[in-house]
Amino acid sequence: MPTYFVSTAAARLSAAEKQSIAAAITRIHSEVTHAPLFFAQVIFNEIPPGNHFMGGTLADPDVVFIHGHVRSGRSPEQKRQLLVRIVDAVSAATVISKTSIWVYVVDLPPTQMVEYGHILPEPGMEDVWLASLPEPDRAHIERVGK
Amino acid sequence: MPTYFVSTAAARLSAAEKQSIAAAITRIHSEVTHAPLFFAQVIFNEIPPGNHFMGGTLADPDVVFIHGHVRSGRSPEQKRQLLVRIVDAVSAATVISKTSIWVYVVDLPPTQMVEYGHILPEPGMEDVWLASLPEPDRAHIERVGK
Amino acid sequence: MPTYFVSTAAARLSAAEKQSIAAAITRIHSEVTHAPLFFAQVIFNEIPPGNHFMGGTLADPDVVFIHGHVRSGRSPEQKRQLLVRIVDAVSAATVISKTSIWVYVVDLPPTQMVEYGHILPEPGMEDVWLASLPEPDRAHIERVGK
Repeated sequence: MPTYFVSTAAARLSAAEKQSIAAAITRIHSEVTHAPLFFAQVIFNEIPPGNHFMGGTLADPDVVFIHGHVRSGRSPEQKRQLLVRIVDAVSAATVISKTSIWVYVVDLPPTQMVEYGHILPEPGMEDVWLASLPEPDRAHIERVGK
Repeated sequence: MPTYFVSTAAARLSAAEKQSIAAAITRIHSEVTHAPLFFAQVIFNEIPPGNHFMGGTLADPDVVFIHGHVRSGRSPEQKRQLLVRIVDAVSAATVISKTSIWVYVVDLPPTQMVEYGHILPEPGMEDVWLASLPEPDRAHIERVGK
Repeated sequence: MPTYFVSTAAARLSAAEKQSIAAAITRIHSEVTHAPLFFAQVIFNEIPPGNHFMGGTLADPDVVFIHGHVRSGRSPEQKRQLLVRIVDAVSAATVISKTSIWVYVVDLPPTQMVEYGHILPEPGMEDVWLASLPEPDRAHIERVGK
């Protein structure tokens, strides 16, 4: 149910760092919101040199900008935890200073989100939703991330 | 008035498939919302290998993620139709399974959107808006998509 | 506190034009919202040929699409000024016609935004926020854009 875009300077992150960041965001999102792991999508966006500015001048090549879309209905405290824990985890996975990490999280009503071809349920209704899907779709979803 | 980003694995879609998807999204958006075709923008984003994760592991290369921004003011039923019909059309245009298709739609007040250099009108006021523009701008807009 | 993505046809903008656009967006955002310059991030997204559609057909290669996320809490008049002045400045910096310029601005609660590793303050509280940070973080931030 969330999608996170992670923008960094091109070639700044190794394949192993991307894997660690994707796994950490997925795990933290699930722990904080109690949504299943298969709802989480992470897409990396590599920015070629000369295309990233901060304060009107070229940005430090260490900057990581994470931009997530999550289902609405989470408490302010859940969102705060999501932000703080993602910053900590990305810094730990990359040895990039926290002062170089930016995270934005946008709320989106689940009625305006389709995943795996199906409109999403409200938070907490994931099991009911999954049980209501056609068997092949449910089997497809349950293999994701395994 | 809408902009849809379509993210897929690099080289997954042919030029013809992109053309079909762009035309289908544009047509469906116009049919469901009654907005003119020239308001619709579609941008494809090709994701290089190793940059797309789902459930914390590398995503299936068939996944299509569509992320649209539309003017607020549409009914829940209009939004539901938009989602369901886009999933159907993208699957039909590409022979990609619906279970690989994700669609998010974000609402945006028209007062926070500029197209063709002009702040957008409320839904339903498109004709008045178009008639109020300088003649060369109107002529420019009316040529789009022709 | 804002992040603006600027999407154009690949190689359409020179390095100098990108620099001018980034500086103009940063300056206008700060003038209209009174937020410090170091809060502004601008990321350019170059669209390869065949990936940009408008009205269901390939887009004019002159199109500039700017998509910003800003802190909520600004007045409608501030947002209108932001849109109008960005269109004017981008057109002036590039000799691209205003009819080719699109701008969307999404509001985001500051509690859902982290910059430089810290959750953002409400508009107007920037000085208090900056003073509350650890000294090395404040020094890091104050060097941005200098």
